[in-house]
Amino acid sequence: MTYHEQNRENYLETLKAFLRIPSISTLPEHKDDVRRAAEFAANELRNAGLDNVELIEGKGNPLVYGEWLGAKRKPTLLFYGHYDVQPAEPLEEWKSPPFEPEVRDGNIYARGACDDKGQVLILIKAVEGWLKTVGKLPCNVKFLLEGEEEVGGEHIESYVQSKPPRLKADAAVISDTEMFAPDLPTICVGLRGIVYTELHVQGADHDLHSGVYGGVAPNPIQAIAEILTALKNREGHIMIPGFYDRVQPPSEKEKEAWSRLPFDVEEYRKKEIGSRDLTGESGYTVFERTWARPTLEVHGIRGGFTGEGAKTVIPARAVAKISMRLVADQRPEEAFEQFKAAVAKACPLGVTAEVKLIHGARPSLVNPDNRFVHAAAEALQQVFGKKTVYIRSGGSIPIVGVFERSLGIPSVLMGFGLPDDNLHAPNEKFNLSNFYRGIEAVSQFLEIVGR
Amino acid sequence: MTYHEQNRENYLETLKAFLRIPSISTLPEHKDDVRRAAEFAANELRNAGLDNVELIEGKGNPLVYGEWLGAKRKPTLLFYGHYDVQPAEPLEEWKSPPFEPEVRDGNIYARGACDDKGQVLILIKAVEGWLKTVGKLPCNVKFLLEGEEEVGGEHIESYVQSKPPRLKADAAVISDTEMFAPDLPTICVGLRGIVYTELHVQGADHDLHSGVYGGVAPNPIQAIAEILTALKNREGHIMIPGFYDRVQPPSEKEKEAWSRLPFDVEEYRKKEIGSRDLTGESGYTVFERTWARPTLEVHGIRGGFTGEGAKTVIPARAVAKISMRLVADQRPEEAFEQFKAAVAKACPLGVTAEVKLIHGARPSLVNPDNRFVHAAAEALQQVFGKKTVYIRSGGSIPIVGVFERSLGIPSVLMGFGLPDDNLHAPNEKFNLSNFYRGIEAVSQFLEIVGR
Repeated sequence: MTYHEQNRENYLETLKAFLRIPSISTLPEHKDDVRRAAEFAANELRNAGLDNVELIEGKGNPLVYGEWLGAKRKPTLLFYGHYDVQPAEPLEEWKSPPFEPEVRDGNIYARGACDDKGQVLILIKAVEGWLKTVGKLPCNVKFLLEGEEEVGGEHIESYVQSKPPRLKADAAVISDTEMFAPDLPTICVGLRGIVYTELHVQGADHDLHSGVYGGVAPNPIQAIAEILTALKNREGHIMIPGFYDRVQPPSEKEKEAWSRLPFDVEEYRKKEIGSRDLTGESGYTVFERTWARPTLEVHGIRGGFTGEGAKTVIPARAVAKISMRLVADQRPEEAFEQFKAAVAKACPLGVTAEVKLIHGARPSLVNPDNRFVHAAAEALQQVFGKKTVYIRSGGSIPIVGVFERSLGIPSVLMGFGLPDDNLHAPNEKFNLSNFYRGIEAVSQFLEIVGR
Repeated sequence: MTYHEQNRENYLETLKAFLRIPSISTLPEHKDDVRRAAEFAANELRNAGLDNVELIEGKGNPLVYGEWLGAKRKPTLLFYGHYDVQPAEPLEEWKSPPFEPEVRDGNIYARGACDDKGQVLILIKAVEGWLKTVGKLPCNVKFLLEGEEEVGGEHIESYVQSKPPRLKADAAVISDTEMFAPDLPTICVGLRGIVYTELHVQGADHDLHSGVYGGVAPNPIQAIAEILTALKNREGHIMIPGFYDRVQPPSEKEKEAWSRLPFDVEEYRKKEIGSRDLTGESGYTVFERTWARPTLEVHGIRGGFTGEGAKTVIPARAVAKISMRLVADQRPEEAFEQFKAAVAKACPLGVTAEVKLIHGARPSLVNPDNRFVHAAAEALQQVFGKKTVYIRSGGSIPIVGVFERSLGIPSVLMGFGLPDDNLHAPNEKFNLSNFYRGIEAVSQFLEIVGR
């Protein structure tokens, strides 16, 4: 029986204790809980046998750092994860309370179980196993955990951009993604970037009665509708001039690999999306549309009267949240300028439209032909018994681009979540078999990297 | 000195007492105040010398009835008004409290001053003057006041539709409109109708992450944008098939009369609307666009995330409030069916769109060539010293259509408000000179009708 097998019960108890801390970074009232989670993680790093463990203080929530650098002439890995979690609302939809972890059917249910506390512990416990049994690691390891991943990650971004010498490494390892399907080992090699904006539209300088002024007064909600439909057509094609100019299509080889992934589009539509139809650009597969094509989505809109019954108002203003997901080699700054120009051009008579940038992140494409990705693929295959697949994600993990640009290192996105883990939703869960196999896989990965 | 001149101070005190009652029909907590206002009005009718004064109870707030039927072989007028008022919010924008009437610069400021308590008192005091001095009226008069005008007027509508014999009359008289300009006597001969709807759009069966699913998931806000822009083009022309089929253009004579109204379009844009440009159908004047053309307006929209910062959600559903103003001879039921069909046709892939009817009212056109309108025009001209103008209103007064269809009588819309009286807004006011001249004018009107 290996150390990891012997300690499964301990690992689970540690995970439960970690999950009981409501470290919700978006809510100021949980500031103390967020710090408690940082200290918990630091303590785990210390217990695992890492050196120089400390909280790195800055503008926001602390970063947690720790290292083991005893493997001379061996590569150094920078392990990244986050100890903060999303809010748990709506609470009434949880089957067990979000911060009282409960095991049901081989899964542990709690906010943060998969995103990302469970996966952070995988990294820590893999290291702990080596240090507690062999007394050393096959390669050098640094940990950098953050507590603001769910609120934009400003602290870690500015810290990494300052290029502190102690972050020097050969590759980053991120466990914050998911496997394509249960039991199918997966490495993510592409992430979309993002430009998140707010559109403010002003019509008249005060609300107007639609009876008296309907026919001559500008309507800012109608104006937003006109802008939205000018920006994206009914086929999901974005009409912003120049927007697609830098888009790199996936290689035929990559598309061919995607076509071999186990995937039932009807089941996906019914069970994952739950809508009448899938939408989007014709001529592209679901993988291309969600991984390799940029999108434009409106996330929210507010304007005028939305209470019970009828009020005949032409509102003075309306606001919408709109983002674009970007793919390589699009640039957030350029996409935002293109967007701004397109909004100005689409803005109808009688209203003014103002666009604000909320945040942006670059898309990332990892070249899978590097030794760290190869090592991860091999380790995953050994533990899961299947050939590792390479996929992309439609989401954004901004830190990947920051590591690449500021530290000059690639990221290995080796995640153990599952598509139905309910990230950011009620009843978030993490599969315990993936938790234990994840620890084994990262453990193997360290060995292969150190060979 | 006439009776009315002698009693100006009394009239003003009565108006103030009436205005102190916060008879806000939209707010359940003011139910008792609404009833107090009904009793106040009934008492005034009794004091004026009317007979058979009573509250007519029904499903909602009471109707107030009173009559004087002593003028044999003379016509009978049915005086209509309402004793309920709009809410006063936002309170902080009032210069004096909304239910503590204050006289400033010849105006009385209070919620309901113009809409409609001041104008109701004009009708009552005109009758009182005759009965207190001559002891009889030149023609027969019935009063029917309601307390639900601001909440849809269901009680009065069902009561009038039941055609009670005691409502038999030759014409209705409504003082709930405004004069085109200060000192310019005005009769309103046209009102737009309305169809008020809610549009509910459902995409996926749960909120989705825009990173993971953006590119294939339907977006109900984008869908509403597509529907809105399909229903109305950028020029304000409604694209619903058949929608304009019944629209009757105003006669050349009426248009010619409108062109002689004192009106500065630039001042109107700047002071009344306060927007960069006026919008709407080209080839039509402001009067045509607001009085004689139907419109489609979105009043409010709600969907997705509208809080601070960024949330990358594709919402499962969104809702919009949309109304159409109708002109003669459009029919609300037919327009709603046309709207429903057009929404269904414009509904994009992947979402379902459901349309609900909130309420509807017919447009009204009064033929100005009837003796009651002529009498009103003559009375107004005598008191105000200018030729009475005929205008229309872009708003809707549903009771006009109900009187026409159920009682078979025309309405004389003789109003004494002014365009800047801030109806439904903070600092509602009523011009005291119009209050006193209104009483004189209605008094004259009774005499002319009785000739």
